[in-house]
Amino acid sequence: MNITAAYTDLYQLTMAQVYFETKPKGRAVFDYYFRHNPFKGGYSIFAGLEDVLEHLETLKFSSSDMAYLKSKGFKSDFLDYLENFSFNGHIYSCKEGDIVFPNRPILQVEANIIEAQIIETFLLNILNFQTLIATKASRIRYSAKDAVLLDMGLRRAHATGGYYASRAAAIGGFDSTSNVKAAEDYDIPSTGTMAHSFIQSYEDELQAFRDFAKIRPENCVLLIDTYNTLKSGLPNAITVAKEMEERGDKLLGVRLDSGDLAYLSKKTRQILDDANLGYVKIVVSNQLDEYVIKSLNEQGAPIDIYGVGTNLVTGKPDAALAGVYKLAAFNETPRIKLSENIIKTSLPFKKQVYRMIDDHGMFYGADAIAIHSETEVSKMEHPFDITKRLDLSAFKHEALLEPVMKDGKRTIPVRTVAEISEYSQTRLQQLPNEYKRFQNPHIYKIGLSSKLKEERDALITQHRF
Amino acid sequence: MNITAAYTDLYQLTMAQVYFETKPKGRAVFDYYFRHNPFKGGYSIFAGLEDVLEHLETLKFSSSDMAYLKSKGFKSDFLDYLENFSFNGHIYSCKEGDIVFPNRPILQVEANIIEAQIIETFLLNILNFQTLIATKASRIRYSAKDAVLLDMGLRRAHATGGYYASRAAAIGGFDSTSNVKAAEDYDIPSTGTMAHSFIQSYEDELQAFRDFAKIRPENCVLLIDTYNTLKSGLPNAITVAKEMEERGDKLLGVRLDSGDLAYLSKKTRQILDDANLGYVKIVVSNQLDEYVIKSLNEQGAPIDIYGVGTNLVTGKPDAALAGVYKLAAFNETPRIKLSENIIKTSLPFKKQVYRMIDDHGMFYGADAIAIHSETEVSKMEHPFDITKRLDLSAFKHEALLEPVMKDGKRTIPVRTVAEISEYSQTRLQQLPNEYKRFQNPHIYKIGLSSKLKEERDALITQHRF
Repeated sequence: MNITAAYTDLYQLTMAQVYFETKPKGRAVFDYYFRHNPFKGGYSIFAGLEDVLEHLETLKFSSSDMAYLKSKGFKSDFLDYLENFSFNGHIYSCKEGDIVFPNRPILQVEANIIEAQIIETFLLNILNFQTLIATKASRIRYSAKDAVLLDMGLRRAHATGGYYASRAAAIGGFDSTSNVKAAEDYDIPSTGTMAHSFIQSYEDELQAFRDFAKIRPENCVLLIDTYNTLKSGLPNAITVAKEMEERGDKLLGVRLDSGDLAYLSKKTRQILDDANLGYVKIVVSNQLDEYVIKSLNEQGAPIDIYGVGTNLVTGKPDAALAGVYKLAAFNETPRIKLSENIIKTSLPFKKQVYRMIDDHGMFYGADAIAIHSETEVSKMEHPFDITKRLDLSAFKHEALLEPVMKDGKRTIPVRTVAEISEYSQTRLQQLPNEYKRFQNPHIYKIGLSSKLKEERDALITQHRF
Repeated sequence: MNITAAYTDLYQLTMAQVYFETKPKGRAVFDYYFRHNPFKGGYSIFAGLEDVLEHLETLKFSSSDMAYLKSKGFKSDFLDYLENFSFNGHIYSCKEGDIVFPNRPILQVEANIIEAQIIETFLLNILNFQTLIATKASRIRYSAKDAVLLDMGLRRAHATGGYYASRAAAIGGFDSTSNVKAAEDYDIPSTGTMAHSFIQSYEDELQAFRDFAKIRPENCVLLIDTYNTLKSGLPNAITVAKEMEERGDKLLGVRLDSGDLAYLSKKTRQILDDANLGYVKIVVSNQLDEYVIKSLNEQGAPIDIYGVGTNLVTGKPDAALAGVYKLAAFNETPRIKLSENIIKTSLPFKKQVYRMIDDHGMFYGADAIAIHSETEVSKMEHPFDITKRLDLSAFKHEALLEPVMKDGKRTIPVRTVAEISEYSQTRLQQLPNEYKRFQNPHIYKIGLSSKLKEERDALITQHRF
């Protein structure tokens, strides 16, 4: 499958035809945001921006797309328009890897409304998923502390979505991936161990270990649970580790993939140490997530490397981030979407978001949303609770939305996954730990400038009554 | 991203290098199977086979893959081998769209072990995901009865995994998709309605409806909940429906995307009927799944069309099918993988699976696994419980694994998504409803031929003691 402009929902094109005939010059501002942090967490890691920018710069309908759309009954002048379609709008965005929160714009698109609609589906598809997975990875990184984290999830990922999962996992704090293609394209370190089938293909486990260690001595990790971890796998691994020493090689580790990982890792550590193999690392895998790793840590399990698969790459248990893309302005006039549920009411106007930084360079715990043209935001108000407001004069105000694309061309340099990941870790250090804990994390405040709140409330009143 | 042979786990290549140097002619049989039906259900729908066969016929490492692998320290004679790599093995498989069950082979790969390992990751990645989603779609189809089902999940799908989700949804019983690219490539009907942003881009809702209905009168569905469903959206839709009648057009439907769908659909139906618009259909969406749809049906909600997104394309709440790929034979000798948990012990030998069909052409509820060379299976035994066995003489035996690829070339004709979906629906009619219910479904029996059980137990004993 090639990702072309036809990687979209049909209704974008149906609506586009109507815009084409009725208001072809309409100019829209759309906000990308979500309403809840995934995993009942206290923050999210924004990811996917680079993929979106690359896509938007090269977006086209292919000739087979055009043939298909012709068969769907679109009119010929509109088909001519699509044949020459490209994205020529502006994008304002948080930095990829930044810490973001619900109910405030993370990215804004300002473009011809036809273009803004056609790109919506891809933009949501990539940002929702990568933000979900980067956030999951960040939580696993938090519970794993300084241990090494390997992404091994490709076989359980959602088809080719696994490619983007590996990228997002690296942004969220994973050290390497088993996914060769993602490693190659995104310059992520790649690692791997061995499968049970490798050992089963031999008459005996020891010979399997020997062959592997001779031919691939670099970063050699032996999987020791195929037949019996403590009675067979570990003694055989120790034999091979000693043989490697004689050749001047060093066994990197042994891997546990079943059984009680706390018990087995402690036993394994002790037996390795008794054999003077203190340098041999313990790698574990098997349905790990941030909670299992936290528990293993609390039990004092001496684990050096965690391999995480399904729960990482599928973003379980949430499996989706419900990010949305809402019209905020059209032809310079603010727009709003009401809802029976008031917290789902959208925010009108092109906007800017300011993060409050305290005297120590830490996040104070408040982002203020203002109309883009406002120059000073001295206090922020709770979006709905009129009794809550916050004086912002004591803080440094950091503007979060920066221009990243103008007239369809990116205006920021390409950033590598490694750079984005490092930036994300720096930002996490600015976020107090109360927002990182898994149980009832502290709630980061999102407020509106007085002017934005006033204008929004006027629009609500206008539509409601 | 292009899917090349590098769409795999690094350890497949590391192991492959060892095989290349120690047993380059090794011939392996691998089983693909899973251990639990997803969603605590009573069956699964096997999907993804066509994509796997297409991939295997064209599999290659690209020149950029080769440059990357060179940088990873693989040796030059092995790199030469990879440069000329192709898949030349045999595949035996259930028909795509068939009903399948846990703990029995769904597909077998018989190939040089290097080839069999390198393809493992892609095969699992595609089959696990599409089987998960086809099964979810089939459950939603079961609860929606004869209503029309639209897949609208692309924006919440796992990046490009959404392309395969739309295909699998169609196999499982969805009527159409919003996903233009998947519709185009897989020949799935595509449909769509309109977004809130379309209505917001107008000063008033009525004009938005009017423009849309004039320019896109075919399959026109108006979204009526942007401002107020019953007070604004529905009256405006009725006005436009009447105007369409005057032009000889017909409004297809109105769509509810928020609020209480049972209450609003009943009210809407009544108001439409009172306006002599009995032909206008009611479309609903908003976080639907098989349980919500079942509940709406039980409440008598007069809904004609369901649009399902997130819960369908992410396979929530499971989000993954944990299918595995286990070595069953190597160089003609049977192989086994033991486990602390006996039900995770793998089944040795190249095998065949027989489905028991009763006198009425219905599934009796038993699949028997035999060694491939066995010609007759007169009874099946429970895999672990020695008190349970079943006489099979009264049933017609249907062999489920058929050769689909020989020496790397497919031996079955290409089947379209529509054909596969139709086959799946036929097979579901053969499955008694007890296996389809959501709450504690009846457990379909999987047994072993006496010979397979005996040989497996001998291998367990040999490795354990």
